This record gives sequence, structure tokens and C-alpha cells, in this order.
Amino acid sequence: METLLLAQDDIRDLVRAVGLDALMDLMIARLTEAFATFDPEHLIIPKRNGFSYRCPVMGLVEWMPCYETGKQVTIKVVGYHPTNAEAHNLPTIVSTMSAYDTASGHLQCVMDGNLATALRTGAASAVATRLLASDRAQTVGLVGAGAQAVTQIHALARVLDVKEVFFFDTNPAVQATFPARVAPLLGDIALRPASLEAVVQSADVLCTATSVPVGEGPVFDDIATRSWVHINAIGSDFPGKTEIPPALLQRSFVCPDFREQAVAEGECQQLCAEAIGPDLYEVVQDAARYAPLQERPTIFDSTGWALEDHVALMLFMDLAAEHNIGKKVRLEHLPADPHNPYQFGDG
Amino acid sequence: METLLLAQDDIRDLVRAVGLDALMDLMIARLTEAFATFDPEHLIIPKRNGFSYRCPVMGLVEWMPCYETGKQVTIKVVGYHPTNAEAHNLPTIVSTMSAYDTASGHLQCVMDGNLATALRTGAASAVATRLLASDRAQTVGLVGAGAQAVTQIHALARVLDVKEVFFFDTNPAVQATFPARVAPLLGDIALRPASLEAVVQSADVLCTATSVPVGEGPVFDDIATRSWVHINAIGSDFPGKTEIPPALLQRSFVCPDFREQAVAEGECQQLCAEAIGPDLYEVVQDAARYAPLQERPTIFDSTGWALEDHVALMLFMDLAAEHNIGKKVRLEHLPADPHNPYQFGDG
Repeated sequence: METLLLAQDDIRDLVRAVGLDALMDLMIARLTEAFATFDPEHLIIPKRNGFSYRCPVMGLVEWMPCYETGKQVTIKVVGYHPTNAEAHNLPTIVSTMSAYDTASGHLQCVMDGNLATALRTGAASAVATRLLASDRAQTVGLVGAGAQAVTQIHALARVLDVKEVFFFDTNPAVQATFPARVAPLLGDIALRPASLEAVVQSADVLCTATSVPVGEGPVFDDIATRSWVHINAIGSDFPGKTEIPPALLQRSFVCPDFREQAVAEGECQQLCAEAIGPDLYEVVQDAARYAPLQERPTIFDSTGWALEDHVALMLFMDLAAEHNIGKKVRLEHLPADPHNPYQFGDG
Repeated sequence: METLLLAQDDIRDLVRAVGLDALMDLMIARLTEAFATFDPEHLIIPKRNGFSYRCPVMGLVEWMPCYETGKQVTIKVVGYHPTNAEAHNLPTIVSTMSAYDTASGHLQCVMDGNLATALRTGAASAVATRLLASDRAQTVGLVGAGAQAVTQIHALARVLDVKEVFFFDTNPAVQATFPARVAPLLGDIALRPASLEAVVQSADVLCTATSVPVGEGPVFDDIATRSWVHINAIGSDFPGKTEIPPALLQRSFVCPDFREQAVAEGECQQLCAEAIGPDLYEVVQDAARYAPLQERPTIFDSTGWALEDHVALMLFMDLAAEHNIGKKVRLEHLPADPHNPYQFGDG
């Protein structure tokens, strides 16, 4: 019994074999399908749990399990450490994903989760945007231009006819490097560094993807937005961490990815229960009903849902099999006699 | 940033480099030290959680996290599938263990957990036995002679002057192969297949390590035991799964590994709160106080505690470093620019 490892070089090979646009398109399609068919009796997804701390640095490590009944358990273990880039030149979000066969408990796959997390977070925003943003949306605004912004704009460009992107980051170095990071993905789309206010005011579709500290949100004041603005609020994923002004939330249609988690960690922390709309999967499953919202302010409260990680891991495992990519390792000690843990073979 | 893999062949190499007796002695010593210094403010250990199911087979996958403040998060993900041996020639308990650096969230190590789990479960019984069994104990009884029984008797033989082992398994094939599996560990100790009753009646130290189904315990009737018997009850680790007759529990001193877990999953399910003794770490920390119990029936209710897995993983990581064993893999996709998830290098 082997375990498939999809390590950094395998992820690179997989991206080269499939292509980034095709990979994002597949991710969006698989996620749309997963939302459209989501049944909480079939996919059991508890609220994530973890350890958060202020020492040695502010951060958290949490686990996000998902159980596809009769088939598989997938678990993402993810760290969030906002000081990573400056202190270690590492991404803020570092994760791995694992899949376990429920017939035996065997670990089928361990995979880098960094790329898959960025991709699925972008893809989830694309799903929400396609349903809730105006059909005429052409201008995207990005508040926060770090790693997640790359996949946000990439995903949006796959589902919208984007003409212009206004972007703002509090870190001048991140602001400066953003165009070079995303230009290869975006063809003729104009990339315009802008003030925070200009980003918020001009956006047909706005994305907030910041590491704002707990208790220091929102990340912009309640200034005038387009009356049809759709916002993908992806940075709020921790108790006390919020990005969107409460008044804007209150006058918008707010759709969480996973309500139970969003009320604890997302923008929905700032709302009373009655002000929270349906989960995104419910909008996907009844799109016609929610279509009129495209002309109103709408907010996708994206805390990051284990369903998305499950779908991402399954997609990567399928693509790895198709392209024969990955390392097979006998990770578990499985003696020929299963009753003898001290049997080690001859090799 | 690399991740250390300790796979099946690395575990074999490590055992060959260290030796099984020395490895078990180290495990017992490290566990004793961990119990002696345990401070719930320093090691944060939530009750484990997981998914249990009856389809495709009766089983569960659960995660056992442990947070050493300021340093490390370790997580064991463990499957329990009693049909594994017959259906797949796999161990009933299959697991892997992982360690995460809390400075960055980086995954430091992924390791087979099968051997470490068997070792630490044996070592925990040795710690309890040394404190709670009679000084004169020479006869060990084993109810259940599968994989866990191997490390149980090995661990006991490291801390007791064992002369005879009586063993019983409901599966004749498992019963038949037991001596060959453990003889190399036990020197002159006599290995005697016996009836269930003979095992229970003759034991100075008894170990129950069965896969009795939920609701079908106890695994033996409330027959006469030695008045000084010490029992390591290690099979009870699931709601409704119990091995020990309630009357025997009620007249014994019962010491759980982790009370919160034992009342939900262990023998302590069968006891009211007042009938449950201190946790094993409390006995370790105040051994003189509990020494008189050596002449009374005592039961270690061993559900399997994440602390033990944490200690086992740290021991294996230390030994791997000392003997230069293991594979280093760049598992996480960590681009040179941490703000660009789409940067894949040249290699």
C-alpha cells in the first residue's frame, strides 16, 4: 500500500502539464458542480478547529476535515502566520492536504496545500461572482495584493470580461511587484495601482484579501461603492478578524461559504442572524431566484470551507493520475503479518 | 524548507540502529518524564475527534492534536478498522503522525504512526504497571493476542520480572502465531496458550487488547482475579466499546490516561464520576501516595492519549536526527516570492 506524495516539484510538473488557465477552469467547474450537488448527508463537514497563539508569533494551526460518506476522509492542516513573509520569506498561509480511504484508514495521498488553497479560494470567488456580480462588471478592485490576490484576479478573469484592475496594498513592496506577478495571466487587462479609496469606489467587483490584525478591521471606511458592487471578502477567517465596514455589510446581501464557520470567523461575525443570506451552495442550487441580486450590493463571505479543499485535493489526485505525476512512498509501516508490528522485512 | 519523511523503510532502519529493547526503554523513559512534568498550560490537548461509520465497513478516522506552547503542534490521524486484517491483510490501527512548527506553520515531519502507536501504548502500560502492579508480579495475562499485545508484553517485560505469559485470542490463527511473534523479545519467559478463564485468573498483570464490537463487552465475565491484579485495559477507545466487567471496575482503583476522553470512550464510560481515580500523570507525579494500591485491584484505562503520540513523534524525530535516518522532501510549494503562488522556479 503506497501513499501518493504531491510535493513542490510534482505540483510544478502538474501545472506545466495542465496549464494554469485550464487548471483554474477545472477548479471552478469542479467547485460549481460540488456546490450544485452538495448534500450535507453525503459530505460531512464539521467546523474547523485548531490552536491559535501569540507566541512565538501571532498565528494558528488548524485542521479542516471533510468526510465523503462511504469513500474518503480528507483533512487540510493549515497554518496562518502573517509574519511569515518578512520573517522567513514564506507564504502567510502554509498547508498540506491528506486523503484517507475509509475502507481501511490507509493514507492515500499527502499533497502540498499552498497552491490548491490559493486556487480554490480564487475559484470560490469566481463561482460567487458569476452568480452575484453584475453582468456588465469590467472593473475589479483588489484590497490586498499578496498571494491570494493573484488567484483572485486570475479566477475572476476566467469568468468576467475584466478590462481594468485597480489594486492597493499597505506594503509598498507588495504593491510594486503585483503587476509582474499577474500580468502573464491577464493578457490586455490594465493593471492600475491606486489609492484604497479609488480601488473601493471604482470596483464593479471588489476583493479584500488582507492580513488585517484581529480587532483592527475594517480595512476601508464606509465610502460610496458602485450600487451594484459585488465583494469577495476572503481575508476574514478568524474570530475578531474582519475587513468590511458593518454598515456596508448591513445594506448588502451577504452570502457565506459556510454559515456556521462564518458567524464565528467571517464577516458574518458583524451581523445578526437574520441579516445573513443563504450559503453559496444554496445560491448555486437556486441561481434564478438570486439573479435579481446582481444589481444590488452583494458580499461573498469567504472564510475558506473544507468542501473546497476536498474538491481541490480530488482534482489534483485525478490530474496526477492522468498525467502520471507524483511520488509513491510506502509511508505506513505495514508488516506482512498485520498482527506483528515488530516485523520489518528483509530489504 | 524541507519536510522529514519517516516512511516504512526509515522506521525499519531506525529500529535496526537503535534496537527494539533500547527503543522501548527510551519510549518508557520519555513517557515517564512527560507524565512527571505534564502541565496542561504547557501542553494543550483537546479531546480527539473524528468520523465513525458503518459503511463501507465499521470503522473510524480520527485526529489527535497536541500543542506544545511556543514550539510545536503534532497531529496523529488514525484509522481503526477491525476488518483490516481479514479483508486487506492490514493492521487494525493504521496511522501517521505529523509535526508543525508554530513559528511558521511549516510541516516539519510526516511519519508512519503504526509502530509508534504500538510502542507508546505498550510504554504507557509499562508506566502504569510499574506504579500500580504488585512488586512481586511475575505472571502476565493477555486477552487479545494481536498487534497491540506484542508491544504490551514487550513493554511489561522491560519493567517487570515476568516469568510466564498466559494468552488468549478468539481468533485461533492469531492465538497460534503469538509465540513466534514475541519469543525473540522475551528470552526465557514461558509463553502458554490458555483459556480465557485461565488467563484472567492467573494474571498478576492482565492486559485486554481486543477489537470487541461496540455493545458486546465485557470480554470476560466477572470471575475471580488475583486480589492484587493490575489490569491495563487498552482496547476500550470508542463510545460503547468496553472490555472490563463493570463489577470489577467498581471494586478497583481506575486510573484513566485522559479522563475527559475515558468517560466518553474508555472503561470509565461504565463508572460514575466519583468512582474514577486520578489520571495516570497525577499518579506519576505523586507516586508515593498511590503505592499502597499495589496490593489492590487497579485498572489503567488506556484510551490512547495524544500526549503519548506527541512524545513518540519527538523521540523518533530525535533518533532520526541522531542516526541520520529519513528522507527530506520539499513537500510544500514555497515559491521564492512568497506573494506569488504561481511561481514555480526553473527546475
